[in-house]
Amino acid sequence: MPGTYKIVELVGTSPVSFAEAVKAAVAEASKTVRHMDWFEVVEERGRIANGAVQEFQVTIKAGFKIER
Amino acid sequence: MPGTYKIVELVGTSPVSFAEAVKAAVAEASKTVRHMDWFEVVEERGRIANGAVQEFQVTIKAGFKIER
Amino acid sequence: MPGTYKIVELVGTSPVSFAEAVKAAVAEASKTVRHMDWFEVVEERGRIANGAVQEFQVTIKAGFKIER
Amino acid sequence: MPGTYKIVELVGTSPVSFAEAVKAAVAEASKTVRHMDWFEVVEERGRIANGAVQEFQVTIKAGFKIER
Amino acid sequence: MPGTYKIVELVGTSPVSFAEAVKAAVAEASKTVRHMDWFEVVEERGRIANGAVQEFQVTIKAGFKIER
Amino acid sequence: MPGTYKIVELVGTSPVSFAEAVKAAVAEASKTVRHMDWFEVVEERGRIANGAVQEFQVTIKAGFKIER
Amino acid sequence: MPGTYKIVELVGTSPVSFAEAVKAAVAEASKTVRHMDWFEVVEERGRIANGAVQEFQVTIKAGFKIER
Amino acid sequence: MPGTYKIVELVGTSPVSFAEAVKAAVAEASKTVRHMDWFEVVEERGRIANGAVQEFQVTIKAGFKIER
Amino acid sequence: MPGTYKIVELVGTSPVSFAEAVKAAVAEASKTVRHMDWFEVVEERGRIANGAVQEFQVTIKAGFKIER
Amino acid sequence: MPGTYKIVELVGTSPVSFAEAVKAAVAEASKTVRHMDWFEVVEERGRIANGAVQEFQVTIKAGFKIER
Amino acid sequence: MPGTYKIVELVGTSPVSFAEAVKAAVAEASKTVRHMDWFEVVEERGRIANGAVQEFQVTIKAGFKIER
Amino acid sequence: MPGTYKIVELVGTSPVSFAEAVKAAVAEASKTVRHMDWFEVVEERGRIANGAVQEFQVTIKAGFKIER
Repeated sequence: MPGTYKIVELVGTSPVSFAEAVKAAVAEASKTVRHMDWFEVVEERGRIANGAVQEFQVTIKAGFKIER
Repeated sequence: MPGTYKIVELVGTSPVSFAEAVKAAVAEASKTVRHMDWFEVVEERGRIANGAVQEFQVTIKAGFKIER
Repeated sequence: MPGTYKIVELVGTSPVSFAEAVKAAVAEASKTVRHMDWFEVVEERGRIANGAVQEFQVTIKAGFKIER
Repeated sequence: MPGTYKIVELVGTSPVSFAEAVKAAVAEASKTVRHMDWFEVVEERGRIANGAVQEFQVTIKAGFKIER
Repeated sequence: MPGTYKIVELVGTSPVSFAEAVKAAVAEASKTVRHMDWFEVVEERGRIANGAVQEFQVTIKAGFKIER
Repeated sequence: MPGTYKIVELVGTSPVSFAEAVKAAVAEASKTVRHMDWFEVVEERGRIANGAVQEFQVTIKAGFKIER
Repeated sequence: MPGTYKIVELVGTSPVSFAEAVKAAVAEASKTVRHMDWFEVVEERGRIANGAVQEFQVTIKAGFKIER
Repeated sequence: MPGTYKIVELVGTSPVSFAEAVKAAVAEASKTVRHMDWFEVVEERGRIANGAVQEFQVTIKAGFKIER
Repeated sequence: MPGTYKIVELVGTSPVSFAEAVKAAVAEASKTVRHMDWFEVVEERGRIANGAVQEFQVTIKAGFKIER
Repeated sequence: MPGTYKIVELVGTSPVSFAEAVKAAVAEASKTVRHMDWFEVVEERGRIANGAVQEFQVTIKAGFKIER
Repeated sequence: MPGTYKIVELVGTSPVSFAEAVKAAVAEASKTVRHMDWFEVVEERGRIANGAVQEFQVTIKAGFKIER
Repeated sequence: MPGTYKIVELVGTSPVSFAEAVKAAVAEASKTVRHMDWFEVVEERGRIANGAVQEFQVTIKAGFKIER
């Protein structure tokens, strides 16, 4: 992967699973950031209400090549 | 979130996925702990038998408001 | 668990979820490593293409008893 | 410090500072936990609204001797 | 907190305290970043001169919702 | 290990060794917590006086099944 | 260093060494980010092919003053 | 900052706040260590008595240039 | 220590102490791995039954020179 | 990178630099491990003698595809 | 513990156990450092020869009050 | 390595590379500390000016035997 890359940190959310939360973050961010190449998970959290998990939250770092 | 919160550490298990293991821990703990608000994942492990994953185990910290 | 155990580090991949990536790594490794007992997740990453997650990658450590 | 100690994890909040958030958590918890001896800071976070910090949140671990 | 969030990393400085350094970073960043929701402290450092603390420096991560 | 587990954090002390400090914490805690299953060491510290170690202190997390 | 700073995360690459990979990331990023002041290394990785290192990859965080 | 620096680790204490504890450590150490340049916070702890925080304790690393 | 070394990860167990668990892992592994040179402790855990520690478990990394 | 990968941990040494130590480890290991794809640096250490650095030591994790 | 403390980092060694290695480091250091108060374990390593543990090595941080 | 060792923390600087920065720290410190045996890298940072790396800074811990 020659070249220089930038990394952005994102939090995605999903009522279903951690994997869906990652997909949501990548899909939303790809509207403004082009050519994202990889991600890594930084943190997994969530919201609880009425004794049940309401939302999975995943913080990821996503890398993309700096285009000139 | 004004007020003071307490954090409990739990391990949930599921034969299906990490997300299901989190849900199981929250559901079981909510029988005795009221008003849990959020969780964060501390560790993800599992048990293997006969060359296949038998169980996903997720350690979480769950926070709830101290009621007076 | 009396006895001595060895730990191997593996990366499994799946287009679907982190749990499936763990299962894939365990299934593949079990062809040559016998009696794996447990795993723990070390890292969760993935590959992105065309603005969508293409692959979930999970690095695990898996332990098995040293047989004599 | 001979004897056995238990550690509880708490989150205190304050609109003023991290030190005040610690004090609030200790004061509130001391209503039900006796003889707390020490604390250590685990995490410092906060809430932002309208471009200004609204609340400092400090997660601490507090230790107290198990009484028989 | 449904939706997708972005996290920016900032360093605030203050001659007075860590809490003031956080406030300064949030106030300055809010001129260009709208709707910051939360922060977490990453690192606390400072500058010393003539045998006294001259400046408190706090590195924070601040999260805000991606608006469409 | 199907089911849900809770984790408590304890500090044991011993004038002899780290292993004895762990044993002391487990023995004391087992008077009120039933069915502890495993522990992991979080921190090892100690007290010094007159140029010699007076006390070994071990912080552990101990897990036990939530009984209904 | 009075004022507020922003931190960006970059990955530089070089066939020669980690130091050259850092220099490449800083040189490329300086085309769009002005007044970078310092960096810290977050991660060092690389690519291997045909039994030899093909590329050194260094992830850095670089800080620069927010200008008004 | 050309040259070589040495780092010393200190614990400062204050009944008031973490910032005051840092100031106390730097002021005391500057009586024997000249030309300290910067510090970073390693750990924040404290002592509790009678259900209230009695003392804030901050462990810092402080750097100073080696003079010839 | 010129040359290239490989590191293996092992878990040793002992009913007595952490030191004995390390010795057990090294003794067992040395039946198949020659010329181990050093170890470092990665994790210390254990098993509890009937309110007492049954087993100390120590995960170590052990290094040995690659022989040609 | 579909498929399953294994990770080995290696220590390379060089009298010259950290980059050369990585190259040495990869070159030596490639004599028995085929198709290594990537590495990441785990630790950088070294040996000192007569007041000068004699050897740079780099611990890496290297990943390669499991071939069937 | 009002006042300011300094922390020194030491490595003790013992052919017997980790606890003995800590005791050795404290006993040796107390010949030149007065009034050491506490220690914490930073790292546990050791040397292996002929397939057996030859030496336990423990790195500790030890704190003592700065006397005027 | 029987005996007791002390560890000092140093920051070396170089305009050329991380390896040169380590060498500079060791060479400078060896003027007052005798018999340094090993080092480990704690942190790698640097200074940027005019869009280019001006200085590599490496924080190391260096160990030496306590002589009587």
